[in-house]
Amino acid sequence: MLSDQQILRIPGPSPIPPSVQRAMSQPMIGHRDQETKELLQRIKPDLKPLFGTEQEVNIITGSGTAGLEAAVVNTVKPGDEVLVIVTGAFGDRFAKICAAYQIKTHRYDVNWGEAVTSDAIKEYLEKYPSIKAVFATFCETSTGVLNPVQEIAEAVHTHSNTLFIVDGVSCVGGVEAKMDEWDIDILVTGSQKAMMLPPGLAFIAVSERAWKVIENNTQPRFYLDLKKYRDNLDKDSTPFTPAVSLLFGLEQVLRLIEQEGLEQVYARHQLMMKMTRAAFNALDIPLLTTDKAASPTVTAIKPADFQADELRRILKEDFSLTMAGGQQHLKGRIFRIGHMGYCSPADVLQTISVIEIGLRKAGKTTELGKGTQAAQEVYLR
Amino acid sequence: MLSDQQILRIPGPSPIPPSVQRAMSQPMIGHRDQETKELLQRIKPDLKPLFGTEQEVNIITGSGTAGLEAAVVNTVKPGDEVLVIVTGAFGDRFAKICAAYQIKTHRYDVNWGEAVTSDAIKEYLEKYPSIKAVFATFCETSTGVLNPVQEIAEAVHTHSNTLFIVDGVSCVGGVEAKMDEWDIDILVTGSQKAMMLPPGLAFIAVSERAWKVIENNTQPRFYLDLKKYRDNLDKDSTPFTPAVSLLFGLEQVLRLIEQEGLEQVYARHQLMMKMTRAAFNALDIPLLTTDKAASPTVTAIKPADFQADELRRILKEDFSLTMAGGQQHLKGRIFRIGHMGYCSPADVLQTISVIEIGLRKAGKTTELGKGTQAAQEVYLR
Repeated sequence: MLSDQQILRIPGPSPIPPSVQRAMSQPMIGHRDQETKELLQRIKPDLKPLFGTEQEVNIITGSGTAGLEAAVVNTVKPGDEVLVIVTGAFGDRFAKICAAYQIKTHRYDVNWGEAVTSDAIKEYLEKYPSIKAVFATFCETSTGVLNPVQEIAEAVHTHSNTLFIVDGVSCVGGVEAKMDEWDIDILVTGSQKAMMLPPGLAFIAVSERAWKVIENNTQPRFYLDLKKYRDNLDKDSTPFTPAVSLLFGLEQVLRLIEQEGLEQVYARHQLMMKMTRAAFNALDIPLLTTDKAASPTVTAIKPADFQADELRRILKEDFSLTMAGGQQHLKGRIFRIGHMGYCSPADVLQTISVIEIGLRKAGKTTELGKGTQAAQEVYLR
Repeated sequence: MLSDQQILRIPGPSPIPPSVQRAMSQPMIGHRDQETKELLQRIKPDLKPLFGTEQEVNIITGSGTAGLEAAVVNTVKPGDEVLVIVTGAFGDRFAKICAAYQIKTHRYDVNWGEAVTSDAIKEYLEKYPSIKAVFATFCETSTGVLNPVQEIAEAVHTHSNTLFIVDGVSCVGGVEAKMDEWDIDILVTGSQKAMMLPPGLAFIAVSERAWKVIENNTQPRFYLDLKKYRDNLDKDSTPFTPAVSLLFGLEQVLRLIEQEGLEQVYARHQLMMKMTRAAFNALDIPLLTTDKAASPTVTAIKPADFQADELRRILKEDFSLTMAGGQQHLKGRIFRIGHMGYCSPADVLQTISVIEIGLRKAGKTTELGKGTQAAQEVYLR
């Protein structure tokens, strides 16, 4: 096996572009110095289009979960009633965070692999009009489902002042998000997925409606207090020492996205999804989700006649290619391919063609090249 | 001015060693993969000596303040009585965190630039025996004071089960810390100071006594829940996606410290402190702290006859050398030199000799070379 090659095809962390790697290697600077001020000045305007907002995007040093928790502790307090839409492991995480803070939590569970419908949420809110906030997952990383957050936003906002809070961790930057137009109140993402950076930053954009709630919320918080981030960002600063090297990288990521064009970035992710799905369809291996529910950033496959984890083991051993397994009750039953961020159609072809070899080694008598061919055809169409 | 040179002499973030920079540029890996498991296995034992503990050191992705807040929310709850020793801006931060969580907070304020005495704390605790935890700052970054935490620990623990919680952010890794021997219950640090990494990681070690309190503490927390970090670290894992690139760097930092020898690292910091202090004494420019209260990692200077910020401006302009100013009421009245982490006696000589030029430009008629000479003599002694 070729030394020093790692092919990372999990749904985050995702590979880092070489120019971003170089940007992160810039010498350290003081977080209170003019250099950092200017860095934030350059970053701020270019972050907004990824969220589809005119609001400033706040940057927290932490895992994506820190961003999700910030969305909770800033908007609700113990005893408040919320609805958490659970379509997989990350919807479940929102529910767990709410539970930890004694928020009165309604769970709306959907079968893993399916998307929620806006009608269901509309009905639910009619039944429980005292719900103050609805939490949803945009792309559910654990299943590869893209939930229809635009439609859900509409359903939520027919109801007075209910907030609509969205975890966009595994898709913002790779999937169109129009926070202002769709009327999403809070949109969170992390650095290590479609944002092409190492883990360590959480991003969180907040609507005017949500800021009003945040300002009056008595829930104690300090490190995750969004008001502190907003007030400092207004002065091109951060309340606490930020992960400076990731900010260096972020500036370069935003430059790369600008060079490619945001629409092209989204189209590339759509294409990679279609290529991946066409390949498994051609190989007659079941996909976990329908075409309609599928995310452009991650595809989950649910094999009927071979072991998902055995295929993963073979590809890791033979090609240093890493795919993700299933989480919670899907452990061992699915495998997931990340195709987001620094990933191209050529990378998808590599992944598919390598998987075809792995399938043979796993004892499945698939026709070699058949999946690859289907993906190539999608590319050429 | 030479392009592309930055001389960073603030008390954190501190410069990054080239080999650490290279380590951080390794290709991204999956945070749930064997590679990360093995990385954590290599890191875990080597972190302990820096804290002087047999306990595992928990790693949180976040700013140092996330570590301080973790120390608060895991050990106390609203209504609990605590004592916060405030010797500067970071003791004040502990007090602010406690206030945000409705902890009944006694503040013990010491004049900025002075260290607290253990006798004072002993007396205070005798007067208020219901205090459950004492929070202190080891090195107070805002003043360059090193508080006598070993003596304070002794004073605290003559009182039953009171916890002693220490912010070691700007010194652990550069100053001897014997958590177990001195009987410190929680010791926190950040990555961007003596640990020679970019900002983005907080480290937190916890005594058996503190774990018992943490297990029974009902204060809600999720991202900063230390039990989650401990339970995952036992399995060589993290509860949330960690800042992987900083973990790559951390492994190399620990290798560098092992190569130099921890005792030598501490001796180097002592030497750099003495060189810096000797220089300003020779230049007849007042230091903020006494020799006894001085920290080996940062020196604060309080000029009597020139403007601190004017000197800083000149050095930045002429040499791209950055020093820190004063915080809160010391703003404009002091300047601070960081000499920690990736900093050598040669770097201290460079800093001093450049400052001497800056002093001339600021209108002070100091004898050139006099401070440098004093520092050289300390080195040769």
